[in-house]
Order: sequence, then structure tokens, then C-alpha cells
Amino acid sequence: MLQSKLFPGTLKEDPKDEVSISAKYLIRAGFIDKVMAGVYTILPLGWRVLDKIEDIIREEMDAIGGQQVFMPSLSPQENWRKTADRLNKIDVLFEARGANKESRRRNDATYVLNCTHEDIVTPLAKKMKFSYKDFPLALYQIQTKFRNEARPKSGILRGREFRMKDLYSFHRSPEGLQKFYETSKGAYKNVFDRLGIGEDTHITLASGGDFTKDFSHEFQTECEAGEDLVFKVKSTGVCYNREVTPSQAQEFKGNFSKDQKEMELVEGKGVIGVGELVDFLKIDIERTTKTLVYKTDDEKFVLAAVRGDYEINEEKLSKVIGASRVELADAKEVKKTTGSEIGYIGIVNAPEKVQVVMDDSLKDRVNFESGANKTNYHAVNVNFGRDVEEPKEFFDIKTAKEGDVFPETGEVYEVFKGSEVGNIFPLNTKFSEGFDYCYTDKDGKKNLVYMGSYGIGSTRAMGVIVEKMHDENGIIWPETIAPFKVHLISIGKDEEARKLYDKLRKENVEVLFDDRDISPGEKFAEADLIGCPLRVVVSAKTLEKGKIEVKKRNEKEANFVDEKELLKTIK
Amino acid sequence: MLQSKLFPGTLKEDPKDEVSISAKYLIRAGFIDKVMAGVYTILPLGWRVLDKIEDIIREEMDAIGGQQVFMPSLSPQENWRKTADRLNKIDVLFEARGANKESRRRNDATYVLNCTHEDIVTPLAKKMKFSYKDFPLALYQIQTKFRNEARPKSGILRGREFRMKDLYSFHRSPEGLQKFYETSKGAYKNVFDRLGIGEDTHITLASGGDFTKDFSHEFQTECEAGEDLVFKVKSTGVCYNREVTPSQAQEFKGNFSKDQKEMELVEGKGVIGVGELVDFLKIDIERTTKTLVYKTDDEKFVLAAVRGDYEINEEKLSKVIGASRVELADAKEVKKTTGSEIGYIGIVNAPEKVQVVMDDSLKDRVNFESGANKTNYHAVNVNFGRDVEEPKEFFDIKTAKEGDVFPETGEVYEVFKGSEVGNIFPLNTKFSEGFDYCYTDKDGKKNLVYMGSYGIGSTRAMGVIVEKMHDENGIIWPETIAPFKVHLISIGKDEEARKLYDKLRKENVEVLFDDRDISPGEKFAEADLIGCPLRVVVSAKTLEKGKIEVKKRNEKEANFVDEKELLKTIK
Repeated sequence: MLQSKLFPGTLKEDPKDEVSISAKYLIRAGFIDKVMAGVYTILPLGWRVLDKIEDIIREEMDAIGGQQVFMPSLSPQENWRKTADRLNKIDVLFEARGANKESRRRNDATYVLNCTHEDIVTPLAKKMKFSYKDFPLALYQIQTKFRNEARPKSGILRGREFRMKDLYSFHRSPEGLQKFYETSKGAYKNVFDRLGIGEDTHITLASGGDFTKDFSHEFQTECEAGEDLVFKVKSTGVCYNREVTPSQAQEFKGNFSKDQKEMELVEGKGVIGVGELVDFLKIDIERTTKTLVYKTDDEKFVLAAVRGDYEINEEKLSKVIGASRVELADAKEVKKTTGSEIGYIGIVNAPEKVQVVMDDSLKDRVNFESGANKTNYHAVNVNFGRDVEEPKEFFDIKTAKEGDVFPETGEVYEVFKGSEVGNIFPLNTKFSEGFDYCYTDKDGKKNLVYMGSYGIGSTRAMGVIVEKMHDENGIIWPETIAPFKVHLISIGKDEEARKLYDKLRKENVEVLFDDRDISPGEKFAEADLIGCPLRVVVSAKTLEKGKIEVKKRNEKEANFVDEKELLKTIK
Repeated sequence: MLQSKLFPGTLKEDPKDEVSISAKYLIRAGFIDKVMAGVYTILPLGWRVLDKIEDIIREEMDAIGGQQVFMPSLSPQENWRKTADRLNKIDVLFEARGANKESRRRNDATYVLNCTHEDIVTPLAKKMKFSYKDFPLALYQIQTKFRNEARPKSGILRGREFRMKDLYSFHRSPEGLQKFYETSKGAYKNVFDRLGIGEDTHITLASGGDFTKDFSHEFQTECEAGEDLVFKVKSTGVCYNREVTPSQAQEFKGNFSKDQKEMELVEGKGVIGVGELVDFLKIDIERTTKTLVYKTDDEKFVLAAVRGDYEINEEKLSKVIGASRVELADAKEVKKTTGSEIGYIGIVNAPEKVQVVMDDSLKDRVNFESGANKTNYHAVNVNFGRDVEEPKEFFDIKTAKEGDVFPETGEVYEVFKGSEVGNIFPLNTKFSEGFDYCYTDKDGKKNLVYMGSYGIGSTRAMGVIVEKMHDENGIIWPETIAPFKVHLISIGKDEEARKLYDKLRKENVEVLFDDRDISPGEKFAEADLIGCPLRVVVSAKTLEKGKIEVKKRNEKEANFVDEKELLKTIK
């Protein structure tokens, strides 16, 4: 490709409305263009990269028996009601309908604009495959997904519209699902290895969400721009997404005085929240207690308490009390349950009929603070056994934080930010139940089909790769997905350079040839920004030597080689 | 691919809710699945075909300098207001917004779901390219489009969601546009040739619509399921879409009596429409006159008249009277303009102040009928010169119909149904005006950019190909886009067939291997239905001969060949 023809060229300055490094570089170098928040055009250079990323994904999905399909983006609303009323529960769901009066007069229906395809692929498979002989089955597609994100701001790392590979698998049994699920992990590993981010991408246990009580698995790439926090157990290599990390607090080091002081109620009207309490009582935050009132699905109330420097993890709390979900009680409910207003709730003088769930971060403290369950009052110098009964069991109901310990081995977690480039879900029978999707086994008996779903965001992967592979001058593409293998630059020797360009193209080398009439400095700067693996220069200096200058994008030094050596370097 | 694994297999019966042959065959053979009206999933076999169609399109677009991009499906509403308020004027436009309360709470914006991309590509190009050196420029993409069709019923020939290649070109001058426009015709010809429908696909002059006073060009494939009627001038090969066909009526053969009878007003209360008139007056339809009252953009009224067996073409009428558009006057306006109620309007006693436009089909008639412009009355035995002044000029304001004559040469048109597989538009400055998109020329002067747009519906093309290429047993794919080159069938000799399967795959031949345990008859029937170019059979009979049976899908007779000959036939 001649760079003089390439649309659109590079920008001199970073775009002002982008914060992520990947968005800045991809826009400046001419790979993407922002249409509006969370919505981008993929430009010619970007399309070359994305196409290669998706080819790699396609090959790996084919290799594990995936069959490529292309499901629509529009789907009937009723499909999204079948499984737990997802039509109303998915908070990022888009709908599509006629955009003006005349369009709605022609057809007044409203459709879902799909953010995922379980609700389309399940009825499709059900229509066609219902004998035990038909399984396993794996269907996948690569296409655009739509999510009504609240405030997307990280370029193509999180879009309202993005490209994704989604594969769905169907099985006769949990064992069949499990086997394919493990196979898929291998395919994902291959994908990320080939994309050049394999070493930094970690299989990470994550919440099964609404889908399953099992963990799902995320593929988290270590990345400063990542939105997730990953906790790694160094001795085993096992990684957890923060939301499900088993968390044990490190012992409070300031807990030197073991002498129990007299408990007092301190009036602190309006002193609400641990920050204010620390200032008001002049105590360490670790001595404070955060107690909240939760309501379960079946209208029961519980008190949940963690050390002041932690947050309560509602999913962990739900599991401990055996509820399908919990939500914070409102002011009225709090008053009714505890007799106190919000802000003064604690484990001291807790109402007898209400279950109190205490996190293990509360253990082994003396003279600590707790809300007094009396409006405007906090209790200080509280001690277990004397002021509050020590519970039979402490639980893990807190969100992990840096410095926490893996309970099983006692080792401190390694913590890093991760960007989720893939995720896989053991859906089990969630959707087959919703759509009543059964197969008939050998004995004529009907059984629910087991399903899994497996995603890779291809546009996000492109963003993450740039987050990982760049320097102060621009992008450094891995060879497997670079827009061009060679960036050929002519310095005043266009004719000779063009000859080399033609030769390389004859050898099926992908070359971007900078044939423009601008300064060498500008050409070099743009080559670094665009980030092709090899920069090849033809100039008076190189011709004099009878050589060609070659520099790898990720190395500092250039080499001078002849044509044969150049081709060898390229291949 | 092993057919035992292929999703989903074939159906025994035609789908009940499809009328077009292509939809019936594509669904039965397992290429597509209907999700809802106008919305289909492309299944694995279908995806293989579509991918090849799109590869061919891509190669031809690259060859004329197109650069591939991928614009989003969502776009800001304001873009669609810039050019003639398309947001409210495009009657197939979809919008997207949050599908439920929580989603709208997160982000309450409404977006357009794009049916075409002029309104996105113009601001994109404007942002980047504004010097005379930057042109010409051609950007294209292949992706999903959305149209809120009223009642789609022809499978993938017309969908609410479909795949399309759309290219946009940008130029400094009308001449530059014209040159590229002609080049694009060549590229389109190559595409349709390679898809096997080149011979039956005709460049057809069509309306420029809102975009241009020039013709646009459609690529119409002769096809019984086509929605368009194409009129071909045999001597020159020029084709017109019915909507713009220059039309001259054949002389009314029943016009034998040249004696002018006395004009009479006949009371015919409630006799409205030419059908009823013919019965009531017992005259040939060619003797009746259809006169309608139209209102122009600027609130002027005109009477337009054609022979009773024709319809008025509003676009032709608009051009004749120099209006940008016309619409039928309502009952009140008709009364006010003519003094008569609708149904009795005519060219006799027409109000003096109102322009009367007469089609040339009215010429040379004697003793004809016309509404009397008097409620409940029709005039019979009307004659020009005596009862109605003969106009200085007759015009062509009618929609052409079969039997019509090309005015320039007097030859009767050849007429056929066409399905529009591609269309190209000289947009000229329509969108650059809307977006104020100018470039700076050598002298520093600003000029509007000239644009063209160029579409090919890839899913529709797939449907049209099936409409054209099938027999009573199934589809007959052209080699260039067949899902597999070879359909290998084993009759009780699975091991030997599998050996051949492995050999062919080693030679990079695309093979579908029917390894299922079903009857030969079923296998042959499915092979015909699916339609791969070569059927290869391994059976006891062929093994005995030391040969392999090969049959082309479009031939009746099979041949027996050895492996070498087989490979030769394949390549």
C-alpha cells in the first residue's frame, strides 16, 4: 500500500477527549475514529489488524470443532422473557424500533438489539438438534454486539458497540460440558499466545453471575488500563477476580494494648461513615466497624459487619446466608429492624431476632468501635465476650483488597489490574430450562441440554494489545497481527525504493511504502507511531553501501543488509 | 467437513411460511434459519457461501482502490438531520435506545441504527481530507444494515437486517466522480460475472431519488422473484427500471371509427374508477381517461390525465411541471379546484386557471370518455378540438407497461422482472452540502466535494443466485461460491471413502463427506438439495471397477474416473 493513498493518515496531536493510551495511539496513528462516546469507526489500518485478530480466533475455534454461523442483531422481545425476564433485567440492553412516525406506521414492532446470543442460539439449537446423537455441538460467530454502557470512556476497551467472538456449546451431561470447557481454555490460551499477550493473560476465577453457582473464568490481561483487580496466589498461580477473591485480613498491627477498657457510648450526632468516625474518635480505621442492614429476596433482614477498612461483598454475603440475592435496606426498614437511624447501626445491642453476620476481619480486636444501634451514638472500647457475644463462626463477607491473605496458605496475594479479553461460562441448564430445551437419550428419556458460552472481544483485544505493546513513540504490533509486516521508507530515492516495494509485493510481503514528499524525520516518527515490525529504509547512504537499512520496531539499532538477507529477516 | 457433524442438517419439507424459492431451498438445505419476518441466521453452510461472495466483492473493491473500513451501526441522530432531515424522512429508519427502565436510567440517549452510511462517512472524510491532493478517495465496508421494512416476505431477498457492501467515493469535480463511477461499473460487472449471474445482470437506469436529478444505475438480475420490472431496448441493450422508462403507448387498435359522435354527459353516480366505467359504459378501457388532481410542494394544483389503462407516474409528472415533488390532492382540495367530487374529474370543462398535463397516450383517440368535472357525471364521445382544446404538447407522465414502445426508435420493449443486486448513485454534492464538506483547491479556493455511493447486497445476491440456479431437486451453486467443491458420498464403503476424503483434504480440496448411516437415496437427495458442484461416490460398484464415480450437479450423467482424473476434474 502506498502511504500517500492511505486513509486517513496520522494526527499531530493526541485526541483531547480520550484518556486511555490505546485510544490515543490508535486514533493518532489512524487505526480508529471516534463517532461518539463508546462508538468508533475502524479505519483501514485498524481493519487490517482486526481482521488478523479475528482470523486467529476463527482458526482456533474451528480447531475445537466450532462451526461458524452469523446470527442476527435484531431478535424478538419474547425470546428475552423466556429466561428470567432478561428483557427487563439486563441493564445494558438496547432495543430497536422505527425512528420516525412514518417508519413506525409501516411497522410498529420493537426488537431487542442483541448484547449476547444465548437467547437466540438456544431456540435455534432446540429447533434442530434433540437426539443424544446430536451432541456435542459448538456454534460460534464473530460480529457486532451492542451494550448501553452508562459512560464509556476507554476507547475500544469498552464500547457501546464492539466486535466479539461468541461461541455456544451444547452437551448431554455436565461431564460433556466440563470436557469441552477445558478444551476451550486451551483454545483461548492459543489465541492469546498468538496475539502476543499470552504470557500476561491469566485464567481468573470470577462470579458465575446469574448463570451459575460455579465460578466462570475470565482471561485477564495484566494491564494498567484494566477495569478489574486480579488477586493471584503466587504459590499455585491461581487467580481470582476481586469480586470472588477469598479474603483474609492481615492482623491489625496497631492492636498493641490488650487491656480491655470500659465500654462507653459516645454521642456523635451526624458522625456517619468510617472516615468521619476516625477523625471524630481519633482512632485507627481498623478499630472501626462497618455494619449494614440487608434485606433478602424473601424479606428477611440481616446485619452484616466488616472492619471499617473493608467493604461488604453482597455476593459473598448472599452465599453465607443462603439467599439468592441481597439488597441494602432503606432508612425505614433499618429503623424498624434496629430501632436506630442509619449511620449508628452496629453489633452492640443488636436486636435479638435479627441474624448478625460478622466478617473474620472483626476477629482478635480489643477496644474497638461499633455503632450502638441508638440514633446519634457510637460505642467505643467494645470487646467480644464482654460487650458483644463472640460469634460461633466468623465468615468471609468482604471485598478483598491489596495486602489481603489467601486463607488456605496464608500468603499475601499478588495484585494487578486486569483487562478481561475473554470469558467463559458454564451455563449449565440456565437457558435450556428457560427455553425448555431437552434431548431424548438412548432410552427415550428427556433430559435438559447442558450449555456453555465462550466470548472474546476482538476490538477490546486490539485495544489491550496496544495498552501492553507501545513505547513513548507509538505502537509496537506483534508480527502476527501487524497491519503491514514492513514499513518501507524512501529518503529521496523513490525510484529505487519503489523497485524494492514491487519486489517485496511479488514475494507476498505486506508493505506500507511511504512515498510521500515529507521530511525523513516525519517519516520515521510516523513509522514509530504506526508500529509495523520492520522499518526498511532506502536512502543515498544505504545505496552507497549497496545495502538496505532494517530496524525492528522493538529494537534500537538498525542493521544494513542486502536484499537476500532482508527477505530472510522478513520470513 | 463430516456431514454427520454439520449443523443443522436438512429438512424433509419446505418451510410453511416462505414463498420465495430461494428461501425455501436455503432453509430446507440448512443454509439459513428464520428468526422472525425479515431476520435470518446464516448457518454454517450459508456462511461458507456468503464469505466467498464477500471475498469476491472485497477483491474487486480493492482492485479499484477501495480501502476497507468498518463504520458503526449506531450513529448520532444529529448526523441524520444535517442533510434534508433524513431522520424524519427515511421511512425505513430504525432507532436504538435502552430496552428497559434501568438501561434508560443508565443512558437515556436514542441513536440511529444505520440503514446506509452517507451520514457517517461524510463527516468522517470531512474530518480528515480537505486538500485537493487528497482526492479521489474511496472507502468501503461489508457489514449489517437495518431497514424497518413493512412486510418482508421474500427470505433474504429483502430483510429487515441484511449484509451489504457499501462504498463511498469522494472527488474534486463532477468529471472525477464520473470517471470513478464508470470504473465502478466495470468492478460490478466483474463481481456479478464471478458470482455466475453476470450474463443475466443488466445495468439499468433508475431514479436518482432524492439524491440527484441524474439517473442512478441499478444492477438488475433477471429473476422471476424480482420486485422490479425492467424495460430493455433491444436494439441498444439499454435497460430502464419501470419507474423511469420512457413510455409511448401503442396505438389503440379498437379506434376504428373515425366519425365523431355527439358528446353527452352520462349520469353515473358512484361509478368511480376505470374498471367500473368500462362495465357501465360498455367501452374499451383505452377509450377511458384517468384524471387526477395533484398538489405541488408550493401548493399549486394541476390536473394530470392518462389513458385509462395507465397509471400516472408522479416522478415524471413532477419533472414535467418543474416541481420537486407532487402528492395527490385530498377530497376537499379536489372539490375546491374543480367544483366536483373525486371520481368525476376529467379534461372536459376543466377549470381555466388550472394547468392540465396530458399524457401522449390520450392522443389520436376519437369518441373517448372523460370525467365531466361535475359530481356524478362522465362525458362520453369526447373529441379533441371540439370538446376539449388539443394541447400544444402531450407529455410522458405515465408508468410504462408491457407492450409499450421506446419513443426514440419505436420498438416495443423487452420486459422482464429483475432483482436489484447492486446500485450506484452519483450523489454529487447532496451530502457535502448537508455537512458543508469542502476542499481547498490549488488556488486556495473552497469547493464542495463530489461524492458517489455504491452498494451490493451480499445476502440478497446469495438469494438471487439460488433463484437463478436451481432445479426441482435443489440448489446448483456456481463453483466460485459453492460451500464445498466436492460432496463425497460413501455407500457402505466408509473406510475407502475416508481415505479419499483425507487425500482430497491434503490437496486443499473443500470436501463435505457424507459419513452418515442412511440410505444411498437419502444421501443423493441431500447432495442435490445442498448443490455442491461435484458429487463423488465410493461404493462396492466403483471399487470393483477400480474407479470413482463423479457427477456434476448440473449434468445428468456420472463418469467413472481414477484418482488422478478426479483431481484433474476438481482443479
